[in-house]
Amino acid sequence: MLARIKKLAFEYEEDTISMRRNLHKYAETGWTVYRTASLVAKTLSGLGYQVFTGSEVIDEEAMMGVPSSLELERHEKRALAQGADPFWLGKMIGGKTGVMGVMDFGKPGPTVGLRFDMDANDLTEAEDEAHRPYNEGFASINKGAMHGCGHDGHTAIGITVARILSQVKDNLSGKVKLLFQPAEEGVRGAKAMMMAGVVDDVDYMLGFHLGFILRKLGQISTDAGGFLATTKLDANFTGKPSHAGLAPEIGKNALLAAATALINLYAIARHGKGTSRINVGIMQGGTGRNVIPANAVLKLETRGITSEINEYMHSAAVRIIKGSAAMHDVKVLLEEMGSAAGTSSDFALGERARRIAKELDLFDEFLPQVDLGGSEDVAYFMSRVQERGGQAAYAIIGTEISAGHHESRFDFNEDALRKAVSYVAGVTTDLLTDS
Amino acid sequence: MLARIKKLAFEYEEDTISMRRNLHKYAETGWTVYRTASLVAKTLSGLGYQVFTGSEVIDEEAMMGVPSSLELERHEKRALAQGADPFWLGKMIGGKTGVMGVMDFGKPGPTVGLRFDMDANDLTEAEDEAHRPYNEGFASINKGAMHGCGHDGHTAIGITVARILSQVKDNLSGKVKLLFQPAEEGVRGAKAMMMAGVVDDVDYMLGFHLGFILRKLGQISTDAGGFLATTKLDANFTGKPSHAGLAPEIGKNALLAAATALINLYAIARHGKGTSRINVGIMQGGTGRNVIPANAVLKLETRGITSEINEYMHSAAVRIIKGSAAMHDVKVLLEEMGSAAGTSSDFALGERARRIAKELDLFDEFLPQVDLGGSEDVAYFMSRVQERGGQAAYAIIGTEISAGHHESRFDFNEDALRKAVSYVAGVTTDLLTDS
Amino acid sequence: MLARIKKLAFEYEEDTISMRRNLHKYAETGWTVYRTASLVAKTLSGLGYQVFTGSEVIDEEAMMGVPSSLELERHEKRALAQGADPFWLGKMIGGKTGVMGVMDFGKPGPTVGLRFDMDANDLTEAEDEAHRPYNEGFASINKGAMHGCGHDGHTAIGITVARILSQVKDNLSGKVKLLFQPAEEGVRGAKAMMMAGVVDDVDYMLGFHLGFILRKLGQISTDAGGFLATTKLDANFTGKPSHAGLAPEIGKNALLAAATALINLYAIARHGKGTSRINVGIMQGGTGRNVIPANAVLKLETRGITSEINEYMHSAAVRIIKGSAAMHDVKVLLEEMGSAAGTSSDFALGERARRIAKELDLFDEFLPQVDLGGSEDVAYFMSRVQERGGQAAYAIIGTEISAGHHESRFDFNEDALRKAVSYVAGVTTDLLTDS
Amino acid sequence: MLARIKKLAFEYEEDTISMRRNLHKYAETGWTVYRTASLVAKTLSGLGYQVFTGSEVIDEEAMMGVPSSLELERHEKRALAQGADPFWLGKMIGGKTGVMGVMDFGKPGPTVGLRFDMDANDLTEAEDEAHRPYNEGFASINKGAMHGCGHDGHTAIGITVARILSQVKDNLSGKVKLLFQPAEEGVRGAKAMMMAGVVDDVDYMLGFHLGFILRKLGQISTDAGGFLATTKLDANFTGKPSHAGLAPEIGKNALLAAATALINLYAIARHGKGTSRINVGIMQGGTGRNVIPANAVLKLETRGITSEINEYMHSAAVRIIKGSAAMHDVKVLLEEMGSAAGTSSDFALGERARRIAKELDLFDEFLPQVDLGGSEDVAYFMSRVQERGGQAAYAIIGTEISAGHHESRFDFNEDALRKAVSYVAGVTTDLLTDS
Repeated sequence: MLARIKKLAFEYEEDTISMRRNLHKYAETGWTVYRTASLVAKTLSGLGYQVFTGSEVIDEEAMMGVPSSLELERHEKRALAQGADPFWLGKMIGGKTGVMGVMDFGKPGPTVGLRFDMDANDLTEAEDEAHRPYNEGFASINKGAMHGCGHDGHTAIGITVARILSQVKDNLSGKVKLLFQPAEEGVRGAKAMMMAGVVDDVDYMLGFHLGFILRKLGQISTDAGGFLATTKLDANFTGKPSHAGLAPEIGKNALLAAATALINLYAIARHGKGTSRINVGIMQGGTGRNVIPANAVLKLETRGITSEINEYMHSAAVRIIKGSAAMHDVKVLLEEMGSAAGTSSDFALGERARRIAKELDLFDEFLPQVDLGGSEDVAYFMSRVQERGGQAAYAIIGTEISAGHHESRFDFNEDALRKAVSYVAGVTTDLLTDS
Repeated sequence: MLARIKKLAFEYEEDTISMRRNLHKYAETGWTVYRTASLVAKTLSGLGYQVFTGSEVIDEEAMMGVPSSLELERHEKRALAQGADPFWLGKMIGGKTGVMGVMDFGKPGPTVGLRFDMDANDLTEAEDEAHRPYNEGFASINKGAMHGCGHDGHTAIGITVARILSQVKDNLSGKVKLLFQPAEEGVRGAKAMMMAGVVDDVDYMLGFHLGFILRKLGQISTDAGGFLATTKLDANFTGKPSHAGLAPEIGKNALLAAATALINLYAIARHGKGTSRINVGIMQGGTGRNVIPANAVLKLETRGITSEINEYMHSAAVRIIKGSAAMHDVKVLLEEMGSAAGTSSDFALGERARRIAKELDLFDEFLPQVDLGGSEDVAYFMSRVQERGGQAAYAIIGTEISAGHHESRFDFNEDALRKAVSYVAGVTTDLLTDS
Repeated sequence: MLARIKKLAFEYEEDTISMRRNLHKYAETGWTVYRTASLVAKTLSGLGYQVFTGSEVIDEEAMMGVPSSLELERHEKRALAQGADPFWLGKMIGGKTGVMGVMDFGKPGPTVGLRFDMDANDLTEAEDEAHRPYNEGFASINKGAMHGCGHDGHTAIGITVARILSQVKDNLSGKVKLLFQPAEEGVRGAKAMMMAGVVDDVDYMLGFHLGFILRKLGQISTDAGGFLATTKLDANFTGKPSHAGLAPEIGKNALLAAATALINLYAIARHGKGTSRINVGIMQGGTGRNVIPANAVLKLETRGITSEINEYMHSAAVRIIKGSAAMHDVKVLLEEMGSAAGTSSDFALGERARRIAKELDLFDEFLPQVDLGGSEDVAYFMSRVQERGGQAAYAIIGTEISAGHHESRFDFNEDALRKAVSYVAGVTTDLLTDS
Repeated sequence: MLARIKKLAFEYEEDTISMRRNLHKYAETGWTVYRTASLVAKTLSGLGYQVFTGSEVIDEEAMMGVPSSLELERHEKRALAQGADPFWLGKMIGGKTGVMGVMDFGKPGPTVGLRFDMDANDLTEAEDEAHRPYNEGFASINKGAMHGCGHDGHTAIGITVARILSQVKDNLSGKVKLLFQPAEEGVRGAKAMMMAGVVDDVDYMLGFHLGFILRKLGQISTDAGGFLATTKLDANFTGKPSHAGLAPEIGKNALLAAATALINLYAIARHGKGTSRINVGIMQGGTGRNVIPANAVLKLETRGITSEINEYMHSAAVRIIKGSAAMHDVKVLLEEMGSAAGTSSDFALGERARRIAKELDLFDEFLPQVDLGGSEDVAYFMSRVQERGGQAAYAIIGTEISAGHHESRFDFNEDALRKAVSYVAGVTTDLLTDS
């Protein structure tokens, strides 16, 4: 079976690359991946998958960081102009651009969930002959949107894995659920899909990322750990302006509240039971030099090696921000802009996946238990499955990159696509095959 | 009349000095001026004044910074051992050591209030041959209590003024109220007497201070202004200790709350309508280097050129302290330890007093409208009288001093006593004489 | 003479209004008042004044807040397109748009300096039928530039005063210097003119403002005081970014430095000798939520009732900003963006001006010693003259206003123009007439 | 051999307990363990060890937190009065109370170092019938000094181990170095002994603690890890006082500097590579409510799971404290009051020790790799040996305790003494026996 999968991956390689470049050119961000998601849905449907999208796979209440309806409409129109499928797009209105393709193989067996993230970054791509996507004509034509994290590759891999599974379906038992997720950047999308229940029946949950901390083709880690749970918060302070020379006492100083909060946020006692983090990445406020500043915003994030530790940091942050506002008699509005759970791969599933990776004979360096040191909202899918007694494993698949992730000259070695397709399809078929 | 007064002041000069030295030797502080007050009461009574003390002149609820009952008892005993009058002391239990002597002259006329403060400082007097009180044997024998602000002189002046007024009483109309006040240091005493109503019927309120900013014998200002209103606060924070290495997250950090409050207290926007001040004079907290600090105290004061401006600062301070405690999830207890009103001398009464001072021919430099730049709780008496349509004036009477006020080598030129007696008695008789 | 001046002011009223409206329509800001200044220069020259501009009246080193050369060029071109005089504009390259017109009357007498400010605000004018300038077709056509403080009126008054003085020149002795100043907003322009020595020989310095705190036609204060000295600072912090999850220890946190500075700036001990102020009106920093913020800017100002007190605040501010940067191992660049001296009108000159104002019979309410409570860089001219033994007086001339100064619907009662012309010309001729 | 050692430990049990109680009764703290150390030296000498003390084993420059010479003298006198050995005490003047006993077994073999800490805590022992040491008459008679951490037991164990080793010396090869250390509390003593070179030739370094986190008799961990490196700092700020009402601008506010430092210390970015800690346990400053506070002290500590991470925290702390002082124009003096290295037991030596512990058949619960989560300055000895290619292991030996470590009712189950003696002597003889 693994040999057959390797052969199919090789056969579909050109299509995979071509699909990746097509998605790269029409990069879409966050919840607005209308074109991408509608094409994914159409393709899956054509391959015989039962396809769910819109409210079927997204819990509206759990969506974080959704753009204004004006903004959403603008992106719908652009997507249609750039070749989105109108039928499927129609089901995704409001940014509900998650897609799930399900195939039941008709024989008793486990349910395997695979996660592919589809969204690009808020970046403008480099226009520079030395940058291959530009040089070869597939650079993003959507200003302010660029695949700088390889999710174009992830989606293309997902499509090819779907093709392969449909080819070998007669040999499989159980069920597969292909989850195509929007808004991974800013960790805003997975929670809404998880809350819609899409992985509640999953026994084995698989995820992966190209590159990241493995920067050589042929490297693989099949059981990455150390996913930091995280919460992203915006705090908007509103005070009262006044002339700083004539009547400073009338003002309510929002910047003073925000600055006091900022310092005290960094001063939260760290947790004795494991890694925690806090950062205020952005602060802005005030309107004029001689006016008591009446507005301020903090954009911050907390993290923790477990969801409990992150929750400790998060609740301390909320208390500090509210206390600081009260101190300076200003109002504050807190908005949750994103979040991810903390988790790690299960040892047993990671081992099994490593065994397959070795059998495939496509990788030459195996790094066990690589530590993510950051946040990925796939952790919501993973930890939900783990809570219900299933197992989860997350792979990092090595590739050279031309610039750091999230940089305007990012690109990767497309040879990694075939390796990833083989690995993901290989592990999946192994899990879905009676042995 | 002024000539007669000058003559009496001269005649009683030796007694005044001797009284001052007696009080100096048995210095008593704050509310515990049992010996001093009981001797004042006894003397006034002997001179024919109607004497009120204890609850008659002190509103218990308005007493600030009262020592523990153990402490009070200890001072009562010491006072008795050092010659206090047991009869009068018996009326002053609980620290209610204010004394008012009233004399009604039987003819229609105004009511004049005079204020004399009796308390010493929390200081230990220098034992040094170069320090006259020590050298001449009248240094304080009560460790930790020393007249370092001249209130011994003020009280002695008050007694002599009382003698003079009783001598010339047949020539006077209206009524005089001699107010001997405890606990001026820390501005804790006047409010409780004022709240007891002692100046509610006063038409002219007079107060004075020796030395202060006039450091030459012969100088006088009869209409000092710029009394800063003030509030003294103690803030006690209580958190929760924990081991700073093993479990910092369990602690509730009282020092962090107090330090955040401290900085933000200084950062209160100053008032556009006039002088305001804030100071945190003392901060303490924590028990061990490796323990999250669970206790902290701030001792602070606000001031304002008007009571309104001080109230603006005070209420902002309270808000900041409470906000900071909430921020760090610690409890805070606020206690008001003292307060004074903001006021200035009335121009008309100041003018009239200056005229008398000139006629007395005892002063050679007249400084109008000297600015106090600090707080004195006589302002409670003055502003109450002013609110009710009366007038108030506060004099500063020059004298050389041997060290700054509140220092352990403080002493003053006793020639100032006779000048002050003449001035105070002179202005009072002028006000009480039909003209 | 006063009668003749009143008559001329009446005669020229229509021209004054028309000139004001012309300047209003082509509003120019800061140092870029090319059109305005070139027309002023041309007009003064035509009236027989000796005209100085560019480097003759501006000390380049003392110019604060000058735009980039690109920006300056853009404004030069716009000015030419909108009717600037090319000859005079040619002398003003680099933003040196100050103009001085001098007339020597050929007889011994004092030198009188008059100051008129020419610049508009960084504002976009309201487009609204209820807003007269829009309704009557003279609203600013330059987006982002609007006369929202009445300097269009001030310049028009200056031109008409110049006409009147040239009409009555045979009756005058001494010399007049008409100073037309750019960049009063942000207090950036006067210092550069003062440093060029333009008022070094002035005996009487006069300035004025329409409206401000006198909001009724017919009101006047001829001796305003309480000009707060001020310094405007920008502080740019530069740290080092790093990933807040993976390697926070590598970052150098510019926002933390800026926030610590901000709070401590507000906490500077206020000066015991008089009013001081500080405000951080704007703070911005950081690039992404998960990146240790590597840049931050503070825009602040200090003020003091005297230049010494402002300097105390300013030097404390610099020390705090540098200390905070050192604390967090980030670099900081401080730039002075504006400044004004602290001063008050001289009593004698104010009295003399009030007498003239009364004789003119154009005003019905005289408010002595009105307190500015803010900053105006005319104070540089005033205090330089005062330091050299001359006198200075600043008038506030009442007018109704349709919205607050610096608001997009600001307008004033143009009847105030004639009154102001009469007053300024009247006082000037009085000073220049032997009596 | 192990059987013989168990037998000897049993035989000497009564003496061990008696010695422990003797030391408990005459508790000595920090560097002033004159009586304890002199008796240790005398005993070791009597057993045939070569004994080194004073400057031979203590590097004076590396001593931290040494009391004043007055204080030292007072303790020397008390020690003599309580039975110290005058000869040995004479060598320890200046607090150099470390003792090293060396025995060379005359045959080639490794050098084994054993560390025993001797000092008591700054505590006053509970006087309470329920507290066994009080009830049975061996409570500390030295007020303010109490063995609240079991070091009395550690020293008694050391003496008995010395006896046993001297008994079995003919069967041993190599060399043993018994290190009796003062001033472990506050982590002040080990560094000075390590710097004197006492472990530079050691191949195997052993240390241990009774109780701590193992609170049941029979528990043992032979390879404890997670020793946090730490630095203890005192920061003394000195500013300038001034009257907070009259002239706040003259003051230099030490409390404001200290409070700003405190908050920013807690805000140091935590290290991405492992655990770090910071705590300001004590802060004090100021003299009077109305005086700008001119003095302040912070007592703080940093920690890190490695010495590098602690050094990162420590150097950031120093920078912040100095920056804060510069910010507020006050002076600051930093003093290092203690420090410890970060380390962990070596796996191989820990395994070997666990094997011995099992063979001894005295323990019933083996906890591998227990995490200390705190600091112990034995880490200086361990890491020096590890740096030079040797191995180190630290055991925790379980015992019930009657109250937490460092509490006034602390006591332990003396049955643990014999177990500890057997373990320490057992592992040592194993290492010194050819196999």
